[in-house]
Amino acid sequence: MSLLDYFRSSKPNSASLAKERLQILVAHERASRNQPSYLPELQQELLAVIRKYVNVSQDAITVHFDQDGNQETLELNIVLPEDR
Amino acid sequence: MSLLDYFRSSKPNSASLAKERLQILVAHERASRNQPSYLPELQQELLAVIRKYVNVSQDAITVHFDQDGNQETLELNIVLPEDR
Repeated sequence: MSLLDYFRSSKPNSASLAKERLQILVAHERASRNQPSYLPELQQELLAVIRKYVNVSQDAITVHFDQDGNQETLELNIVLPEDR
Repeated sequence: MSLLDYFRSSKPNSASLAKERLQILVAHERASRNQPSYLPELQQELLAVIRKYVNVSQDAITVHFDQDGNQETLELNIVLPEDR
């Protein structure tokens, strides 16, 4: 799934407007495929930072990692509870 | 600038393919405008985390913050030096 498709599909509609969402997208365009990827580790640290701001359980967070050639993308989708 | 425009304009071309880039996009869809925004603080913490992985100077990082109704977006663009 391309970044463009991602944002097209996540466009808010009337049913979703009342909910609070946080989406984080990391795109890493690497100069070479031979370097190790640091996105999985970065993901853990990003989640730790986000948890300082929003009180969410692990199952409210959807993570998607994608690799296509030298381009890596990491998507974090967080839906916050409405009754906070 | 919408999220879509952002990714359209940042589509890699032949001249940019050799460079290493890291792009981070945070979209916060808020349930209410009355809450304080935590994105500016979150931005500082995200940059601190990223600096653990990539050795970049402050001027290699472009930050763009946008607010449109209940939707806030934060873009971090990092171009890494080629001669690392």
